[in-house]
Amino acid sequence: MRIANLSGRATIVTDHGLFDVAQSSDGAFSASIDKCIGQIDLLRRWFDAARPTPSDPRGADDLIGDERLGPVVNAPQQIFAIGLNYRQHAMEMGLDLPEQPMIFTKFVSALCGPNDPLPVPGPTTDFEAELVVVMGKSGRNVAVDDALSMVAGYCVGEDYSERTLQLKGSPAQFSIAKSFKNFAPIGPWLTTADEICNPNDLAISSVVNGVRHQDSNTNDMVFTVAQLISYISSICEIRPGDLMFTGSPHGVGQGQRPPVFIVPGDEIVTSIERLGSIRNRAVAP
Amino acid sequence: MRIANLSGRATIVTDHGLFDVAQSSDGAFSASIDKCIGQIDLLRRWFDAARPTPSDPRGADDLIGDERLGPVVNAPQQIFAIGLNYRQHAMEMGLDLPEQPMIFTKFVSALCGPNDPLPVPGPTTDFEAELVVVMGKSGRNVAVDDALSMVAGYCVGEDYSERTLQLKGSPAQFSIAKSFKNFAPIGPWLTTADEICNPNDLAISSVVNGVRHQDSNTNDMVFTVAQLISYISSICEIRPGDLMFTGSPHGVGQGQRPPVFIVPGDEIVTSIERLGSIRNRAVAP
Repeated sequence: MRIANLSGRATIVTDHGLFDVAQSSDGAFSASIDKCIGQIDLLRRWFDAARPTPSDPRGADDLIGDERLGPVVNAPQQIFAIGLNYRQHAMEMGLDLPEQPMIFTKFVSALCGPNDPLPVPGPTTDFEAELVVVMGKSGRNVAVDDALSMVAGYCVGEDYSERTLQLKGSPAQFSIAKSFKNFAPIGPWLTTADEICNPNDLAISSVVNGVRHQDSNTNDMVFTVAQLISYISSICEIRPGDLMFTGSPHGVGQGQRPPVFIVPGDEIVTSIERLGSIRNRAVAP
Repeated sequence: MRIANLSGRATIVTDHGLFDVAQSSDGAFSASIDKCIGQIDLLRRWFDAARPTPSDPRGADDLIGDERLGPVVNAPQQIFAIGLNYRQHAMEMGLDLPEQPMIFTKFVSALCGPNDPLPVPGPTTDFEAELVVVMGKSGRNVAVDDALSMVAGYCVGEDYSERTLQLKGSPAQFSIAKSFKNFAPIGPWLTTADEICNPNDLAISSVVNGVRHQDSNTNDMVFTVAQLISYISSICEIRPGDLMFTGSPHGVGQGQRPPVFIVPGDEIVTSIERLGSIRNRAVAP
């Protein structure tokens, strides 16, 4: 099942119809996508059984690039983001593989819809295609083998980064330099976990102005999605709606010779196999 | 005005009475302290004008060490934390003063009441007394001169830190190493901003097992509270209820020869002039 945040209302997306969750269920489920995330299994079983009539006859393809799409979660309590989590990306940055997951945050005010514009705050603004995990349950000390059962679903994200600020100061300023306005688009919708057998076997790419810069697979991750969830839960309580940005593969702008940074007018399209695409037009701030 | 989170209910605290906000105002204000923070000026004006009868004849002194006190904000959208923001603390750590504020987060699942126990996750658990700022308004690009008008109030906090994890990896793992369970106690209550003319002129201390280890003043900050708010708001939108941990003065456990780390059984009392004290008993995890 795919569930989108369309004009602020939780909407189930199929190829042949859109279903406003609250309207289709006669109010049995909330119009708030954040509330739906916490009961995603229940919602999925209801939808499969009820087979409601579409509230809109358009389908998934009609939503491509739609700016009415909001973030898959509006108000996550926690956003975990992982640095240097792809082998070939660590190589292009000239850095050793981390021995443990490298954690920072993207502050929630950076979150935006999948097709929102990207104000460019500086001359070294970079793109990072990322698989974003949306947690569906609470838990601490989750074993690796149980970790994927905590997941509500997956979506596509960009971890936009202002490199000059990021690498200035000690320690490096990952969290703040990756939290400018609209630096965390996610979407286009949540694809529920039951549809993704293995989150570490998905093609992932980013294309800037038609040029494919990142073209990899989530199987290049240093720490798998399950390992990341288990590690984080050994320290922090995970909560429904929490997001995890799982790191970016090689091919980021800074890794290229010469570097390719984002300037106003650029269009960045980020795609993950089975999860869809998001697209951001860079604009002056 | 002082407002506490007492057994989950917003409660105005005076020396001679406690006022359950929702009950005293006949429901005009919410029992949720998070909702009260967003309308703190209105609440303060109402309280000054209405002069309600106490719902409990006990006073502030009767709440010392009370474990029913919860965090001053239950669910902040963002927690900004500042590293190396006291001159003498940078000196004791052998580090240069930062040229710009050094920002990380404490994940919200670490937040707890002011007198909650502290499970000790490892042998290098350290204490850091901090002034915590509670934001009352939304804003971007706030000028330094306007910054303090964004503040709802202030409270005492501890930025407990597991040093081995914090300093392992590159970049250093500030956010996760400072986010173990109950690593972010705040309280004992919010003291509204109108009562604190200058947040950068307050005595601040931490006392471990009766020994005063940190004994400083917020006037030793590298970046003032107003400068920190202005800087953060130049990147992130600040929102009501957001917290800012403003850094810790010298005298932390790691800065001492030999280092003084927290072990189960220790009692840590953290105090800030005019804001009160919080106290945490270290326990086995």
